[in-house]
Amino acid sequence: MRESWQERFAGTPAVLKSEKRRKTVVPVLDFEIGGNEFVTMAGPCSVETEFQLMATALHVRRCGARVLRGGAFKPRSSPYSFQGLGIEGLKLLATARQETGLAIVTEVMSECDVPLVAEYADILQIGSRSMENYSLLEAAARSGRPLLLKRGMVATIADLLQAAEVVFENGNAQVILCERGIRTFETAMRNTFDAAGIALLKQISHLPVIADPSHASGCRELVPALARIAVAAGADGLLVEVHPHPDKAWSDGEQSLDFAGFDEMMASLDPYLKLRANGLDEPAGDRLAEAFG
Amino acid sequence: MRESWQERFAGTPAVLKSEKRRKTVVPVLDFEIGGNEFVTMAGPCSVETEFQLMATALHVRRCGARVLRGGAFKPRSSPYSFQGLGIEGLKLLATARQETGLAIVTEVMSECDVPLVAEYADILQIGSRSMENYSLLEAAARSGRPLLLKRGMVATIADLLQAAEVVFENGNAQVILCERGIRTFETAMRNTFDAAGIALLKQISHLPVIADPSHASGCRELVPALARIAVAAGADGLLVEVHPHPDKAWSDGEQSLDFAGFDEMMASLDPYLKLRANGLDEPAGDRLAEAFG
Amino acid sequence: MRESWQERFAGTPAVLKSEKRRKTVVPVLDFEIGGNEFVTMAGPCSVETEFQLMATALHVRRCGARVLRGGAFKPRSSPYSFQGLGIEGLKLLATARQETGLAIVTEVMSECDVPLVAEYADILQIGSRSMENYSLLEAAARSGRPLLLKRGMVATIADLLQAAEVVFENGNAQVILCERGIRTFETAMRNTFDAAGIALLKQISHLPVIADPSHASGCRELVPALARIAVAAGADGLLVEVHPHPDKAWSDGEQSLDFAGFDEMMASLDPYLKLRANGLDEPAGDRLAEAFG
Amino acid sequence: MRESWQERFAGTPAVLKSEKRRKTVVPVLDFEIGGNEFVTMAGPCSVETEFQLMATALHVRRCGARVLRGGAFKPRSSPYSFQGLGIEGLKLLATARQETGLAIVTEVMSECDVPLVAEYADILQIGSRSMENYSLLEAAARSGRPLLLKRGMVATIADLLQAAEVVFENGNAQVILCERGIRTFETAMRNTFDAAGIALLKQISHLPVIADPSHASGCRELVPALARIAVAAGADGLLVEVHPHPDKAWSDGEQSLDFAGFDEMMASLDPYLKLRANGLDEPAGDRLAEAFG
Repeated sequence: MRESWQERFAGTPAVLKSEKRRKTVVPVLDFEIGGNEFVTMAGPCSVETEFQLMATALHVRRCGARVLRGGAFKPRSSPYSFQGLGIEGLKLLATARQETGLAIVTEVMSECDVPLVAEYADILQIGSRSMENYSLLEAAARSGRPLLLKRGMVATIADLLQAAEVVFENGNAQVILCERGIRTFETAMRNTFDAAGIALLKQISHLPVIADPSHASGCRELVPALARIAVAAGADGLLVEVHPHPDKAWSDGEQSLDFAGFDEMMASLDPYLKLRANGLDEPAGDRLAEAFG
Repeated sequence: MRESWQERFAGTPAVLKSEKRRKTVVPVLDFEIGGNEFVTMAGPCSVETEFQLMATALHVRRCGARVLRGGAFKPRSSPYSFQGLGIEGLKLLATARQETGLAIVTEVMSECDVPLVAEYADILQIGSRSMENYSLLEAAARSGRPLLLKRGMVATIADLLQAAEVVFENGNAQVILCERGIRTFETAMRNTFDAAGIALLKQISHLPVIADPSHASGCRELVPALARIAVAAGADGLLVEVHPHPDKAWSDGEQSLDFAGFDEMMASLDPYLKLRANGLDEPAGDRLAEAFG
Repeated sequence: MRESWQERFAGTPAVLKSEKRRKTVVPVLDFEIGGNEFVTMAGPCSVETEFQLMATALHVRRCGARVLRGGAFKPRSSPYSFQGLGIEGLKLLATARQETGLAIVTEVMSECDVPLVAEYADILQIGSRSMENYSLLEAAARSGRPLLLKRGMVATIADLLQAAEVVFENGNAQVILCERGIRTFETAMRNTFDAAGIALLKQISHLPVIADPSHASGCRELVPALARIAVAAGADGLLVEVHPHPDKAWSDGEQSLDFAGFDEMMASLDPYLKLRANGLDEPAGDRLAEAFG
Repeated sequence: MRESWQERFAGTPAVLKSEKRRKTVVPVLDFEIGGNEFVTMAGPCSVETEFQLMATALHVRRCGARVLRGGAFKPRSSPYSFQGLGIEGLKLLATARQETGLAIVTEVMSECDVPLVAEYADILQIGSRSMENYSLLEAAARSGRPLLLKRGMVATIADLLQAAEVVFENGNAQVILCERGIRTFETAMRNTFDAAGIALLKQISHLPVIADPSHASGCRELVPALARIAVAAGADGLLVEVHPHPDKAWSDGEQSLDFAGFDEMMASLDPYLKLRANGLDEPAGDRLAEAFG
């Protein structure tokens, strides 16, 4: 490694730590992402029915979630698979917010849909397949909504920061990065969870970073372990798939927790979150951050 | 995922959890690997001088390490780079053991060297480049020494278990697996640390699993974060590079901690290790393990 | 391999060979892609000036190219790098077509730009970063123009076929696939050129497949070798970067051929293209194709 | 690409082209590898029976092969799978040489076996799993036999050259490199065939390079296409699996050609080999080579 970290990431100055900017905190409704609180975003992969969504929203709120996730527009793994309820799904999400006070994060896939989705969502999700869709990034940036930017399936850390830089360049500084696993030769899990990437991002960038243990593992039995790992890596929050009946889910059932599973996961995270609250997210050992001011 | 986990790993029955065998504990000198204690193995990449080795051994013992690592035979990243002190290095390691009571782990690269290295080492390390060198695995297995088996640079979890199965088939059940990062398209760090792979291994195999945050990151500033991640992932121990003067190290200086850095790392791990001791390594959420008895 | 090839790719029936459909031929101006002629598409990475574009167009036409490539809207490797001349670039491309009779292929990156780009271009290029931008694919499909679909940087063959299937589902059967190298651990070249993937695609799909040796290698000295490989693999054409003064190019100069280099490449391909014309693109050995009718 | 090719590969001076050394030719029995002749090495994955080996040897010789391949010591994909006939297999290979005049290439996996295998084989094969087994490389180098060095499953071009450099350093300059596909995220074929890597190696190194289309594709229907690609890439020869009854082969049957398939492949290669003989292996376009003298 001949170059310094600053040299290596010199192409994305706006999103790196600097003396002026050490930490970005994104306010959403009555809480903050990237601040002291660890923020859990939970909900179904796809919005399916009012009952499914409301039951899930009520349950995850009770366990401490702050944000309800749910797809209304779905990137299809096949052109013939379920593509989401569209505007109907957005309306159900809005109802759920009204009933529960949870904030809403949902994906926008088309630049033409940005105004519509921005009307309903508190946070616009840019999916992995769209991370390098710069037209979409620009349109979403200009909506003024906070963006949840998922790392592309084979995006490097530098690529992810570059996508965030594009959002900054378009006047929006409310970006939340999301590690969700990368594509490698390993096939034991759906993706390879780059936990060290979370730690690196927290040291070099001022942006909040959250983890998606559901897509990273593709397997519900491993989700709690990955969530613990994410906390230890310094993540600011989680994005987790929860469904009342995972085996009947219209998409991604294998990686969705049921209600009991979500309870257990949240309980098992508790002691780790207490360590985090005690300031352990920036122990003396994290000296790379110092280089960035 | 159409196959069950048991079906997927059916080729390596001896190393999977079963009703009969839930946990392998490897006794070394007066302690155990894979038991209740979290075992830290630390020391220089290469044995260089008596002073370098003894100073490091004394320091890491004081901070709680149980095992001294140090290479006497080195896999060269180039045919022209330092290849280790050979038998001279082994003798220095033996002296260090005598003086400090630390156990010794050191790499054996040639099947012809197995008897020699086994005479000096408490644990034989099989390096990443050798993970699929079955002749070496067989010779090392027959030495009767515990083996520290490092995952190959592009070995899948299944490949790693297969190498362990070969050791079992040759009559040696004292295998410690080691995750040290895999080779992917990401270049921000030396390797991509597969923390989720540790969690998966702990759920499906009865073998101890340790982590090497030094090779996984290739960057000393990130080593403490990766060590924390490893604890959260359920690892049974660490293999860490420590050197009195990393910038003067004959090999791998960039990823070696100095003494103060090692102190800080150990201190920062402490609260996480307390959680682990409270039984959190097998929380209710880890249900995959149940399938394996 | 327990599954047959048909089972493996069962999700994309429209783009696989079948008894009804063995070969898709895409007519463009006065020639065809996917027919008997091997079609070379050549030109600068970005449209820069009228002189640069016209000089290149005249030269590549003289050497046998049928299509002029040139970017008016550029995906930026950085938010601060050159983003293309936009509509000005499109107008220059239209002028070049008028003067030379070459067809025009140029990238469209935003679904909102589809009508504009479709007005000027004979073939719409969907870039690697956009291969999974289904909103863009749908909009581009509905334009009625032939699409040149570049494989995503980490898209599998199955992913690429799926993107093509989306285009078919939206009523457009004029899809040209383009292999341009994939992202792997290898860093000697910009990408790893999946020549075998071309051969596989030609055996299982009825769509034309072309190769981009410029992006695959990232190095002009290797472009002629990769072009030869592509012909041997059964490709239906090439997409090559050519620039009057590569070292002064505003983008991708390292991988652009100069005029003399393009001449030499075309001459060196000639005997291979004669073999191809003699029917060697479907030798008796290619028996996988038979399974697909 | 800021560094020149010479700078990038500066660590392996002995195997790069230089003014003194432009081409290594390896004499074997009455022919040469790396000279004007394109050399085909063919035979079964494993030596199984005298009938199987002799029938194959006679057939491949009739079709123009110069070398008989066949495994006597097999790297097992599982500890429970067939491990080869051992010395019995070597003796059958020796008989086949005597009867047919074909040279023998067979793998040596253990440094202890080097003298034994060197007694029977004309060329010692170092398998992919052993490419970084430097103890084995050294022992094999000192045997004085030519070495066929297969690229490791995730070895970069630089890694492969380094392994060759180790052989040179141990006094043996008779190294034949073999591209056999690398491990990537793509799962459509067994490996990703790095044809461009062959072209690059031929331009920067003076060593002969051959291709193994059987392991690269893992699928017999694709072997002829990959063989053609290899010729176009500038390879000096092939290593191909052929078996009298592939579906009954004890190992790797799916990727083995039967006799008729081998005939067809050789016939389909013929016109490409004629082009090669006409000096097209170093067309004017291959200018990278010039930089190396």
